[in-house]
Amino acid sequence: MKTATEYLESMKAYNPRIFLGGKQVNLHENSTTVTVLRANARVYELAEDPKYADIMNVFSPYLGDKVSRNLHIASSVADLERRSEMATLTSQMLGTCNYRCVGADVLNALAGITWEMDRELGTEYHSRLLNHLKYLQENDLAVSGGVTDAKGDRTKRPVEQDDPDVYVHIVEKREDGIVVRGAKVSQSGAIGSHETLVIPTMGMRQGEEDFAVAFAVPNGAEGLTYICQYTPFTAERELSPDVKYLGNPLYGQRETCIMVFDNVFIPWEHVFMCGEAKYSGRLVARFAKTHRMNCGGACKVGFADLIIGATQLAAEFSGIQKAPHIVEKMTDMIRINETARACTVAAALKGHEEPAGSGFFQPDDIFGNAAKLTIADGFWDILKWAGDIGGGMAVTMPSELELENPETAHYVRKFMKASAPAEQRLRIAKFIQNWCAGLHGAGTWHGAGSPMAQKMALYNLTNFEEKKSYARSLAGLKEE
Amino acid sequence: MKTATEYLESMKAYNPRIFLGGKQVNLHENSTTVTVLRANARVYELAEDPKYADIMNVFSPYLGDKVSRNLHIASSVADLERRSEMATLTSQMLGTCNYRCVGADVLNALAGITWEMDRELGTEYHSRLLNHLKYLQENDLAVSGGVTDAKGDRTKRPVEQDDPDVYVHIVEKREDGIVVRGAKVSQSGAIGSHETLVIPTMGMRQGEEDFAVAFAVPNGAEGLTYICQYTPFTAERELSPDVKYLGNPLYGQRETCIMVFDNVFIPWEHVFMCGEAKYSGRLVARFAKTHRMNCGGACKVGFADLIIGATQLAAEFSGIQKAPHIVEKMTDMIRINETARACTVAAALKGHEEPAGSGFFQPDDIFGNAAKLTIADGFWDILKWAGDIGGGMAVTMPSELELENPETAHYVRKFMKASAPAEQRLRIAKFIQNWCAGLHGAGTWHGAGSPMAQKMALYNLTNFEEKKSYARSLAGLKEE
Amino acid sequence: MKTATEYLESMKAYNPRIFLGGKQVNLHENSTTVTVLRANARVYELAEDPKYADIMNVFSPYLGDKVSRNLHIASSVADLERRSEMATLTSQMLGTCNYRCVGADVLNALAGITWEMDRELGTEYHSRLLNHLKYLQENDLAVSGGVTDAKGDRTKRPVEQDDPDVYVHIVEKREDGIVVRGAKVSQSGAIGSHETLVIPTMGMRQGEEDFAVAFAVPNGAEGLTYICQYTPFTAERELSPDVKYLGNPLYGQRETCIMVFDNVFIPWEHVFMCGEAKYSGRLVARFAKTHRMNCGGACKVGFADLIIGATQLAAEFSGIQKAPHIVEKMTDMIRINETARACTVAAALKGHEEPAGSGFFQPDDIFGNAAKLTIADGFWDILKWAGDIGGGMAVTMPSELELENPETAHYVRKFMKASAPAEQRLRIAKFIQNWCAGLHGAGTWHGAGSPMAQKMALYNLTNFEEKKSYARSLAGLKEE
Amino acid sequence: MKTATEYLESMKAYNPRIFLGGKQVNLHENSTTVTVLRANARVYELAEDPKYADIMNVFSPYLGDKVSRNLHIASSVADLERRSEMATLTSQMLGTCNYRCVGADVLNALAGITWEMDRELGTEYHSRLLNHLKYLQENDLAVSGGVTDAKGDRTKRPVEQDDPDVYVHIVEKREDGIVVRGAKVSQSGAIGSHETLVIPTMGMRQGEEDFAVAFAVPNGAEGLTYICQYTPFTAERELSPDVKYLGNPLYGQRETCIMVFDNVFIPWEHVFMCGEAKYSGRLVARFAKTHRMNCGGACKVGFADLIIGATQLAAEFSGIQKAPHIVEKMTDMIRINETARACTVAAALKGHEEPAGSGFFQPDDIFGNAAKLTIADGFWDILKWAGDIGGGMAVTMPSELELENPETAHYVRKFMKASAPAEQRLRIAKFIQNWCAGLHGAGTWHGAGSPMAQKMALYNLTNFEEKKSYARSLAGLKEE
Repeated sequence: MKTATEYLESMKAYNPRIFLGGKQVNLHENSTTVTVLRANARVYELAEDPKYADIMNVFSPYLGDKVSRNLHIASSVADLERRSEMATLTSQMLGTCNYRCVGADVLNALAGITWEMDRELGTEYHSRLLNHLKYLQENDLAVSGGVTDAKGDRTKRPVEQDDPDVYVHIVEKREDGIVVRGAKVSQSGAIGSHETLVIPTMGMRQGEEDFAVAFAVPNGAEGLTYICQYTPFTAERELSPDVKYLGNPLYGQRETCIMVFDNVFIPWEHVFMCGEAKYSGRLVARFAKTHRMNCGGACKVGFADLIIGATQLAAEFSGIQKAPHIVEKMTDMIRINETARACTVAAALKGHEEPAGSGFFQPDDIFGNAAKLTIADGFWDILKWAGDIGGGMAVTMPSELELENPETAHYVRKFMKASAPAEQRLRIAKFIQNWCAGLHGAGTWHGAGSPMAQKMALYNLTNFEEKKSYARSLAGLKEE
Repeated sequence: MKTATEYLESMKAYNPRIFLGGKQVNLHENSTTVTVLRANARVYELAEDPKYADIMNVFSPYLGDKVSRNLHIASSVADLERRSEMATLTSQMLGTCNYRCVGADVLNALAGITWEMDRELGTEYHSRLLNHLKYLQENDLAVSGGVTDAKGDRTKRPVEQDDPDVYVHIVEKREDGIVVRGAKVSQSGAIGSHETLVIPTMGMRQGEEDFAVAFAVPNGAEGLTYICQYTPFTAERELSPDVKYLGNPLYGQRETCIMVFDNVFIPWEHVFMCGEAKYSGRLVARFAKTHRMNCGGACKVGFADLIIGATQLAAEFSGIQKAPHIVEKMTDMIRINETARACTVAAALKGHEEPAGSGFFQPDDIFGNAAKLTIADGFWDILKWAGDIGGGMAVTMPSELELENPETAHYVRKFMKASAPAEQRLRIAKFIQNWCAGLHGAGTWHGAGSPMAQKMALYNLTNFEEKKSYARSLAGLKEE
Repeated sequence: MKTATEYLESMKAYNPRIFLGGKQVNLHENSTTVTVLRANARVYELAEDPKYADIMNVFSPYLGDKVSRNLHIASSVADLERRSEMATLTSQMLGTCNYRCVGADVLNALAGITWEMDRELGTEYHSRLLNHLKYLQENDLAVSGGVTDAKGDRTKRPVEQDDPDVYVHIVEKREDGIVVRGAKVSQSGAIGSHETLVIPTMGMRQGEEDFAVAFAVPNGAEGLTYICQYTPFTAERELSPDVKYLGNPLYGQRETCIMVFDNVFIPWEHVFMCGEAKYSGRLVARFAKTHRMNCGGACKVGFADLIIGATQLAAEFSGIQKAPHIVEKMTDMIRINETARACTVAAALKGHEEPAGSGFFQPDDIFGNAAKLTIADGFWDILKWAGDIGGGMAVTMPSELELENPETAHYVRKFMKASAPAEQRLRIAKFIQNWCAGLHGAGTWHGAGSPMAQKMALYNLTNFEEKKSYARSLAGLKEE
Repeated sequence: MKTATEYLESMKAYNPRIFLGGKQVNLHENSTTVTVLRANARVYELAEDPKYADIMNVFSPYLGDKVSRNLHIASSVADLERRSEMATLTSQMLGTCNYRCVGADVLNALAGITWEMDRELGTEYHSRLLNHLKYLQENDLAVSGGVTDAKGDRTKRPVEQDDPDVYVHIVEKREDGIVVRGAKVSQSGAIGSHETLVIPTMGMRQGEEDFAVAFAVPNGAEGLTYICQYTPFTAERELSPDVKYLGNPLYGQRETCIMVFDNVFIPWEHVFMCGEAKYSGRLVARFAKTHRMNCGGACKVGFADLIIGATQLAAEFSGIQKAPHIVEKMTDMIRINETARACTVAAALKGHEEPAGSGFFQPDDIFGNAAKLTIADGFWDILKWAGDIGGGMAVTMPSELELENPETAHYVRKFMKASAPAEQRLRIAKFIQNWCAGLHGAGTWHGAGSPMAQKMALYNLTNFEEKKSYARSLAGLKEE
């Protein structure tokens, strides 16, 4: 397995076409793009740490050796539980994405669907996928996942769009492979991974076969362009003389991009679905099931652990940690987070083999959706309480550079001091600012699908007949 | 094991001193007290049903035979999970208490604490308890649990009260046993069980040894008086010519009483703690841990299943079940309930042996508290939505007796009809009334301890140091 | 104006055909129906009290004398404010409906619409209405209002129903008047008023002229049958040896009935709309506007004042009123209630003349809807906190008759005592039970229209173009 | 009165000592500090606009001429209502502070308290204040207000602090004036106003006379240093080649600073309280009362109008504005905002003269607190819905500079298009980002005092005795 250093070294071979803030930038040099490399390196580092070995690594029957859990196909409820623990752990350590998370969940969804297709259609997608998986595991590669399409007019199906490119699709089938066009948006960490696994954003129907496509593509393949997000945090990082003045110094925000596929060639050995529209919905559904537990739930639980820790520090630094209303608010943050954590635990431990006979495991769907909904809504409350206890300071604090400015340092030290020195209060206030005045409220909301999607899933997964039958029986109302 | 019929037969030997509505009543004849017998009989019946055998029954190593799970000491996470499933199942079937629930959780708490006392103090409480347990299992007895004291002035400790009897305590130690005095309030189903297991309501301190007492007492023992709750539902049942006109026809409300101990003698073989104040807090904490998962969480999940089923029926009977706002509200009920269910599942599956070496299992405390908090708060929302969809009808409907009144039946049939006939709409509206205009909102809130207790538990169980350390590390703030 | 005694005396002339619990009952003798008479009498009594004179009474230009505000057409914002204050006051005094409330708001809606019809259509509805108003004022009559139809299949218009009678409509037009058929449901206090003013439940369309009908009908007119609601509270009252043991001793629940119109003749002088479908929507909208401020908002604010007062007493009686979490909960109840009160105040004080030139005043629609939504949702929270602070006791307390039972009285006194004697604690617990385990959660939700109706109103009343324009301007986005 | 141009011209005379991001900056040149000047200029411009004249301007009896409402002492409920309308209007126009808002509310609070002090103590503060007011009105000056102290250790009183300078206080009394030291934090717009009016942050007690001080100080007075807040938005603005790429192009964030008083001399004619500790609490309470209506309530209602408008645009641009769940969310935003608006309207219209006989008017305290609490909590929900409907795009969008980059513009146009062109979607997404991923959640929470302060106020303002009396009366429970 790769060390963090080896990962960084290996990435030097990649020089993707990246634009950020209106200009082309170098992945290895831009202050924002390097946060993605740094975050990935930290994940490799965690895998080296004996303390986290059981969470981060696992024996793979395909390689016959230890591999990163980011490249593992879950084959037990224990695997599912560890997978969700990895999501929490990396969040606690990074305060941003484990950028290999989507890739891991896409891999698991592809494992099952290709297994089914091969059995039912006589295709060879599954063997291809396993070959590719072995390659990924042997080289311990970082793989991101590409799911969300640009979508264009939301009221129209892909084939009805004025410009069909708003959904990634096959534009040419060649002897040696396919050519795809389109764009995937909100691509977290695609720029920093060795490759990206792409699947459709939703179930495709008959007539939409060209949109039912799944494949792997290496970073920087010909025809790929990455247009990065640009936020106030991008600018702040660019201007900051040292990362230590930033809210999340090393790892920054969840950095995403629009990943444009402008006639990108994919050789057949990297194609895992190609026109099997009927299977595409199930593929997406399985991805969602896993991803809601991990990204939707467990990951944000890790973020919330950080926020709870920081908020408790802020309370202590101000000397108010024992005030009843502070205790009440801290308790509310804990309640929300432990409720979400419980949902992810239940999703994992009530997981089951799916497809039957495959040996692959998927989490419980209802509990995974419950996890996502609990934390999506609760995260805004957690931010609210962090902002409450963090105080006005969390949004009105001066730059920590003032602490090094001889004309203002004594003032700042004098007036920002409470139960802790100004330095500590400002540092933790900046950390809290990163959350309560940052991108994570909306990001958590939409990550792993917007809550409306989970609500629809919950409704559709509910066995109303059974519940109605209980009620009828007790009320003395005969079945119709 | 007892059949339902055998249970009812066995109860005829008991004739406790019961008061209800200001008058003495006969357990076997009063329209309200018989609902307790009926509910208990139904639980015995479920145990006979092969469909529910795995949930309701379990092999006991003490008896060397199958016993009711209500009399089982959990010795694995599977046991904990089944136990919580039993709580959900009985709620779905009864719409009221499994009145043996508190007793079961008290038994489990006593098992651990007596095991510890015997090892550490050289007492013989544990062997006594196991002897008694064997007797209970052999005879498959219904056992209720007595925890909550009258409490008197909330600002004072037991020993500081003007009248120490507001906490059950030992007033005399004799060669053959002890004499206790006091009262336990909100005693669900005590009148219909063969015996009651009593433990303190909270941890006792040095000087409060007389209050640190745990024991078993048979139904109707000399000195016991049961003063029953009296609510509008009691009156409605008394007046109703047939139970079929009632909201929960057979099983009614959760029937509780004040159980007065007026110098009740308890022989030593039924005494399981007697003055060991130091152990009393742990005893109560273990009881709470288990009971919050079962009564606080899983039981109410079963109630909510009923309400969701009934509300969906009401929507269908009115023809509005596909309106987007109805779907949204149904989904919200489901979300709340599945979140609570996930917490109970996680509490069970993350359970562990406690005390270490005992072989006894306890659920995860944090997740059990999360379960209770989720459903306590959510239950009011579930009632709100049931009342919303049930419509004004749920509180303004006429008696179903009008359907048998020749002067009004045709009017009621004509005007109460929608997508379903008036009979069905009224029946389900009455069922919903039982919830959304009944005792269960406040009952769910306080059952297994008021939410403030769970909040305090959550706060105290939280490892703030770990979370603070994550935040410090990421923010670049050195440990002090 | 009538005194309370005169009102009661005057009602003796009425002997409506009332059914309750499956049997015909006498308005003046049945324990439940008399609560309506008693509540109305109390409202007459308040009008006699100099302390409340400004709120309850007002000078009417039509009579040229002081009249009950229940019979007044608002002609200023001060009138609107007083009207809403009357709603709060009567709720504080009765803990149930001022049963003349709907009638008052119907009168106001009819005043405007008939004024418009007369001007635009040359009808004489308005002069008829004023004649009738003068009669009502001269005799100071209690008038209820009938709005909500049975509705049948919710997915169909009135004319599409299998049985058109599910909406009240004209079945015959005669020289001397009209004959109507149908039923109004959830009719609060219709049995205890001198007459009922009936309007459509919604806007009627072309082809639905027969359903666009408004009229006055005296209590007990030929063809009228009143089928009363029947709830657990009805039974409890029937069985109780004295009203003092009940939750709301004198005035009970909001007593409603299905008011059946079985070919009821209405002479022309009592007909105020007859086929003018085009005007019916506006009539209902105006009624809703006023009624949401009064019944939807101000009335429930009065209820909440009662609950807050009772809950504070319960906290004091238990000695916990200074615990921080109790203060927090009391504050939350206050916050909700004062927010709703503010909305009603704003609705009144931002009222305006409508129709223009009429001299009649209507409250602000947006703020009235906000009032209703705030308290509908908040009321469930208020009930939750009342149940929290009231304690398990609020649902498990014994009958207060035990205090008069020599066999149990000493036990109850001993064990129910805290910072206040058992008698006081039980009394206030019973009062709280009436709310937190009663009909008012769902009743408040649906009264003055279900929240979905207010939400639709709010959305439709919003000037999106103005808000979009502000956003465009600031964002630098040109108007399209 | 000054025009916007005259205001900007007049500011050139001021060159305060300002630090931002660790460096000294020029008020008139720094990209962030100029947003304050620009916002103030816009407020002067609004006063010139006949459309807004009634809101922005008012006749002053002191000057005998029209003045800015920012310099007016309210003397009627109409004044209070107009004042709160000004707060809403400027928020709608600026998307940030009217930086003269705190000053206006401080002026009103000082008017009353100095009037009382002069009458009761024979001081001449009130006449001084009126003289100064006349000067401010004659010159139409922009006045900010300084209230919040640095506070140091929250568990200690000012006199107990290690460093008393954490509260602004008098360090020397001289013949010609006083010398003050300390710092006011979170000073919105102090850098761009002609002067600042300073009052204590809380009620002072006996022994804390030096902290009971109120005065006016001109911008940039000797000894004053302004240390500005520094956030990601500061950096983004600094780096942006044109303001048009920013979320709030012209007016930016609410820019605050720490305003350090390092031995600043204040001549007697600018001192309005000097040691009268007994009056300081009332002064702060009156300020809070007014400010909660205006800043706490009405201002944020204006912000929410902007967000609602922008979110509706985003929904339309995506073509999803008619989806039921979008309508539901829009309605929820409206509900929250109109509820808060109603509270501010009620606070104004139920205002009253205070102190009695002064002719000065103050809003209703309960309703003002309700306004603040409603919007503080609701604002987080409004941000949540804006982020929901704005979509992931609101936090992952690329820079609009890409639209001018020939290498990416066609991609961005192609893939960001929906029902509206990419340009429009990005522009409104950026505007929404400014809110849902910005400083305003926490800012709204703490502005005009943190919610805990309003809760304490609500509890203390409640007449529990009256409510208890209603409950007792209805329950039949005699007064003790």
